[in-house]
Amino acid sequence: MKYDDYFRSELTRLKDEGNYRVFADLERERGAFPKARNHIDDAVRDVTIWCSNDYLGMGQNPEVLAAMHEALDTVGAGAGGTRNISGTTHHHVLLERELADLHGKEAALLFTSGYVSNWATLGTLGAKIPGLVILSDALNHASMIEGIRHSKAQKVIWKHNDLDDLEAHLMALPANAPKLIAFESVYSMDGDIAPIKEICDLADRYNAMTYLDEVHAVGMYGPRGGGIAEREGLMDRIDIIEGTLGKAFGVVGGYIAASADLVDFVRSFASGFIFTTALPPAVAAGACASIRHLKASAAERDLQKDKVAKVREKLDEIGIPHIPNPSHIIPVMVGDPVKCKFISDTLMDQFGIYIQPINYPTVPKGTERLRITPGPVHSEADIERLVGALCTLWTQCQLARQPLAAQ
Amino acid sequence: MKYDDYFRSELTRLKDEGNYRVFADLERERGAFPKARNHIDDAVRDVTIWCSNDYLGMGQNPEVLAAMHEALDTVGAGAGGTRNISGTTHHHVLLERELADLHGKEAALLFTSGYVSNWATLGTLGAKIPGLVILSDALNHASMIEGIRHSKAQKVIWKHNDLDDLEAHLMALPANAPKLIAFESVYSMDGDIAPIKEICDLADRYNAMTYLDEVHAVGMYGPRGGGIAEREGLMDRIDIIEGTLGKAFGVVGGYIAASADLVDFVRSFASGFIFTTALPPAVAAGACASIRHLKASAAERDLQKDKVAKVREKLDEIGIPHIPNPSHIIPVMVGDPVKCKFISDTLMDQFGIYIQPINYPTVPKGTERLRITPGPVHSEADIERLVGALCTLWTQCQLARQPLAAQ
Repeated sequence: MKYDDYFRSELTRLKDEGNYRVFADLERERGAFPKARNHIDDAVRDVTIWCSNDYLGMGQNPEVLAAMHEALDTVGAGAGGTRNISGTTHHHVLLERELADLHGKEAALLFTSGYVSNWATLGTLGAKIPGLVILSDALNHASMIEGIRHSKAQKVIWKHNDLDDLEAHLMALPANAPKLIAFESVYSMDGDIAPIKEICDLADRYNAMTYLDEVHAVGMYGPRGGGIAEREGLMDRIDIIEGTLGKAFGVVGGYIAASADLVDFVRSFASGFIFTTALPPAVAAGACASIRHLKASAAERDLQKDKVAKVREKLDEIGIPHIPNPSHIIPVMVGDPVKCKFISDTLMDQFGIYIQPINYPTVPKGTERLRITPGPVHSEADIERLVGALCTLWTQCQLARQPLAAQ
Repeated sequence: MKYDDYFRSELTRLKDEGNYRVFADLERERGAFPKARNHIDDAVRDVTIWCSNDYLGMGQNPEVLAAMHEALDTVGAGAGGTRNISGTTHHHVLLERELADLHGKEAALLFTSGYVSNWATLGTLGAKIPGLVILSDALNHASMIEGIRHSKAQKVIWKHNDLDDLEAHLMALPANAPKLIAFESVYSMDGDIAPIKEICDLADRYNAMTYLDEVHAVGMYGPRGGGIAEREGLMDRIDIIEGTLGKAFGVVGGYIAASADLVDFVRSFASGFIFTTALPPAVAAGACASIRHLKASAAERDLQKDKVAKVREKLDEIGIPHIPNPSHIIPVMVGDPVKCKFISDTLMDQFGIYIQPINYPTVPKGTERLRITPGPVHSEADIERLVGALCTLWTQCQLARQPLAAQ
């Protein structure tokens, strides 16, 4: 076995398939986001970011930054240990209280990332609860899939957002088998939203627990930014709400909010929670400030809605196809991996616009897309430039346009 | 199935066994570390931390804090995306270069934590390399064990640090089977150190790759803080060096350093790397400053050695038993879970000294201990107070003392 040859040949295969990822080296400019500088070798060029998950620009919010500066000044850099061995700082305790309050739950638990919160929570529940069957939406995120797989629990995959299929599976399981329905509110790649109420009705009917990933919704939906479940008055019907501090809240980290006992159970048994260094107190302080700000302020959410609507409208005016979903995510459909990559490269090289192409395996073949995330930080001029550039490239690539709306 | 009843009964069982964890709520005081304030309900008391993994006090280092402040000021809080989708900032790129240089490797790859770096790397290598057999030291960290388990690769567990047992297993495997030997340099709970050279010799003989977890060594050993492998001139014989930014480097995050192809392979295939928000640029900047500082400065390492030697000497003077290992970790052996917890509680309540008790299942029953980590931040007076308090409690608990050294 020649190990290096193996690695090289696998990488070559990836490149031949067009699936090799090259990361854009970015340097944001505080106060000027979504503007950033893109480093290429020793050169630097200015770009506008249109694919960030810092959806509301909270990574630049003065209160968030002030809280992080203050925590650095008062307590220092890292937490210095696992949560159990000297790593629980007062900032962690306050943040967990804030998160429990955000979701109207008794308790919350912080993880180092949203990925780890999904993986560790589903992994622990699946491994520990005897006979648990996890019913997982077909389009659930990789972190949920890996957690369920790792748990070795029985897994049932139901068709994406399909209530009939979910019910058929629930009905087929023994009435007394413990069950957990795992799904997301806003799905990242299509931007569609799950029928949460109806899923909760089914959960009640078949005595299943509910696990809802709200990572693409927290901060952005609901009167206090509690997510889609808050907006629809359903938070009390979800057993476990999982969220992230790294997207709309603008920092990093993941969490669950649930009953005190359930949270204490995961806290006590999840390897991925127990045996890892806690997040830096400054991160916890920044996240806490961000959540508090978005609980009280709807300005960012309102402005985001306006900008999303404006981009959709402008795209419609020139017939550029995008999925008409009810969320803030605008998937502009290219439907060809080579053209998708070409448009992305050209946007960057010739227009200073950065949108990462989304190709297989992240989305199915034939649905390659540019995933655009307009936010309050994008100006009218940014929108004009984006849509103008897409118009030019659409023609250049000879891509089909939608029938134009009646004038 | 009554889910809440189940969670409650499992927690009760944990409490009855004495294994329920209560986290100490700490608030460090910058510049005064290892002093911290301990919050209990609404009260606050002063404590000295003796069990931190911020081994060198770098979480308080002015250069580290300045780098983090500067990054917050120039680029903002979070990275805003996965590494592939807008989350690679220039600070990440610079940090990966710094890490590759630290270990004399072609490349390095950042993860959100040391846990994730072990889990994702071993998980990916084990799952992807056809027929790979992973030979894992019996005392490897939970994150390595979970990664190997998750990979579903064939696993062989060899007796801790036992070369004969490792060779017997290597010999028993087919000569052409791909193999990976996974082990640590400094083991966290006993503080013992692996025979790295001899393991590399065996790896050469049987054409195995080597994976070395140096999380309890980076920053602290070797002329530039590259770890035990650097100190012993063996870095080039290790295929994959894994480390953390959350212990001696004082911030948070994990990484691997290896050949460019191997790193690119893990970067391209590891779910736990790909589908997660990148670390905040300020974290990367702080870690980078910390590594650079410790590459150039041996002062912290020298002072740590002095303080560790001093604590050992004082413990020996009064016959308090501790494992005589060659590292900076001093496991003071209590050998009884109830007494171990009692001593820890009393140190906190009556002496303002915080040392988390280490009980089963983290260590075997009968080897319950206080794991003490002296560092450059501890003063002579701190040491006197610690040893004095232990002396009092050793008597109070009627614990056996070692024969005193000849005067």
